[in-house]
Amino acid sequence: MSATFDEAVAAIRPLDQGAMNAATARQGRLTKPPGALGRLEGISIRLAGIASKCPPPRPAPAAVAVFAADHGVLAEGVTPWPQEVTAQMAANFAAGGAAINVLARQAGATVTVVDVGIATDLGAAGLGPESGIRSLNVRHGTANLATGAAMTDAEVRVALDVGAGVAAELIAGGARCLVTGEMGIGNTTPAAALIAALTGQPVAALTGRGTGIDDETLARKVSVVERALALHAPAVAAGPVATLAALGGLEIAALVGFIVAGAAARVPVVVDGVIADAALLVATAVAPLAVEYCFAGHRSVEPGADAALAHLGLAPLLDLGMRLGEGSGACLALAVVDAAARLLGEMATFEAAGVSETQ
Amino acid sequence: MSATFDEAVAAIRPLDQGAMNAATARQGRLTKPPGALGRLEGISIRLAGIASKCPPPRPAPAAVAVFAADHGVLAEGVTPWPQEVTAQMAANFAAGGAAINVLARQAGATVTVVDVGIATDLGAAGLGPESGIRSLNVRHGTANLATGAAMTDAEVRVALDVGAGVAAELIAGGARCLVTGEMGIGNTTPAAALIAALTGQPVAALTGRGTGIDDETLARKVSVVERALALHAPAVAAGPVATLAALGGLEIAALVGFIVAGAAARVPVVVDGVIADAALLVATAVAPLAVEYCFAGHRSVEPGADAALAHLGLAPLLDLGMRLGEGSGACLALAVVDAAARLLGEMATFEAAGVSETQ
Repeated sequence: MSATFDEAVAAIRPLDQGAMNAATARQGRLTKPPGALGRLEGISIRLAGIASKCPPPRPAPAAVAVFAADHGVLAEGVTPWPQEVTAQMAANFAAGGAAINVLARQAGATVTVVDVGIATDLGAAGLGPESGIRSLNVRHGTANLATGAAMTDAEVRVALDVGAGVAAELIAGGARCLVTGEMGIGNTTPAAALIAALTGQPVAALTGRGTGIDDETLARKVSVVERALALHAPAVAAGPVATLAALGGLEIAALVGFIVAGAAARVPVVVDGVIADAALLVATAVAPLAVEYCFAGHRSVEPGADAALAHLGLAPLLDLGMRLGEGSGACLALAVVDAAARLLGEMATFEAAGVSETQ
Repeated sequence: MSATFDEAVAAIRPLDQGAMNAATARQGRLTKPPGALGRLEGISIRLAGIASKCPPPRPAPAAVAVFAADHGVLAEGVTPWPQEVTAQMAANFAAGGAAINVLARQAGATVTVVDVGIATDLGAAGLGPESGIRSLNVRHGTANLATGAAMTDAEVRVALDVGAGVAAELIAGGARCLVTGEMGIGNTTPAAALIAALTGQPVAALTGRGTGIDDETLARKVSVVERALALHAPAVAAGPVATLAALGGLEIAALVGFIVAGAAARVPVVVDGVIADAALLVATAVAPLAVEYCFAGHRSVEPGADAALAHLGLAPLLDLGMRLGEGSGACLALAVVDAAARLLGEMATFEAAGVSETQ
């Protein structure tokens, strides 16, 4: 198990082509016309390559990690939501009342809530260890990325390790699938900045309304991201981790570590919406094989999500107009990934069922 | 409970607007930005209208009914699969080895296999009552719709009642959601004919490759459907049940009854691919309110499915390139419908969770 980000990056191996070939052959013997299960067939084949086994084990139990952090860029007025909502929602996750808790219960998944950078003093707010929020706070919110680097190089390294460490722990505890979750008021702004920096697409085409902002706020958000990209051009040129430090967020950095550690452990990672897509872009820039272990859970309505997924060559599993984050879309998509594994493992073959084939 | 098709048609009532208003208001109080759950919000509101209750009960346990029948139109060479596969697959469903069985186990749903018109003599084939296939055979396969009516008026009425009766029984047994399933070698041909007759769209645009046919077979299939529509123009003019008798199939007629009886009992019906979409077109032509109780489980790759759903004003929940039938896409979509109900029922409100709203 890779406990640090750098160890995880070094540990990632390609998918197992032998297991994928076996899975492809097995799909052809199941009692159905060839290709009739559509994308579920390709998912099952990739799961075999990830696990190095055919049929692959079910991606269950799954574990959702919700990394929560705050953002200095709130000073620019990019969202109508007050910063304290990050801590309040972390408490809601820990109490089991949020959308991600409902969806995780449905999927039989655990939810781990991690404070990797909440600004609020949780202890003073009555949200100490007894609240159920895991305290791995690196810093009480990032600096304002529009005026300086969001994080120092040291801070981003610690946040990457937090994510990798949580993934390793969850897998050691029995998780056979990881789901990326996050909470951070204002975090569609750093996500848009990272996606712009890593895909080269124009900011205005990538920047969306997040949780619901008006035209004036959207224009301000675009301008903030454009200024930040100009300011941090040297960091972007220096590479993905420097880009992440300059433009990212602590929860985004933790997600990068989480994804890479899942891939290193050969565990499938179901990636949620635009924030996680930004993290996966960074992860893939550092460790190109990481993306092969990931499934895009759903199509976020944030425009940056489409650009990120196209850059990564991933097609989302669900397209239900969701834009909540928390890991909600990915958690709902677990049903699709699990179905793919079960179908390959449990369906009868033509021979076993005594069913005739085409003439 | 409506035991016959005509009783079910007469019993359908509109959705409960009061329950839908209450559900809309409750969605606005849940701890998430307005609209952030995307289509899940509208699904939950419709579930409240269906059940006449807010929050609505979960659509669980669900019951899949797989109606199996054969088609005289096979004489025209519309498919490479031999007719005996219908009976063989019914046996596979009853034995638990098919895709629908795997997906139903995942969803916690039951599978009921109904012979409503299989051509094979099941008893002689060793598939008597002990096989688990429910024998409600109306006729051993339809007549060839390209040269005459597929069914008599009396036969189509019995098949409609079979479907309505199975739905009523499953609901009496505790089912809180119905899933349409079917099996019938060659049944994309009657489905295309029904969709053409009921939507007025051109046959060539509606007719697809079913389980995978070559260009020559596809051209023959289009020509068969066009001839059938010309031959049966008087039946099409006479109304939806006459159209169904002339152009349909015994399993399609059973699905029409099944859908209408679910709607009559205020139970949500998750509709599978192109065969079920054709059945829903017929059901809605007879009982226009039926469609309000239905969710389109997935987007079949058969081109007729898009035309049917557009005509019905339904958007599919999943789009995974599936084209298997059996109820497979609808069964997988149960996770989405269930999630919608659970989120509305189980999420905390802003007040209860102490979360701030926008400034």
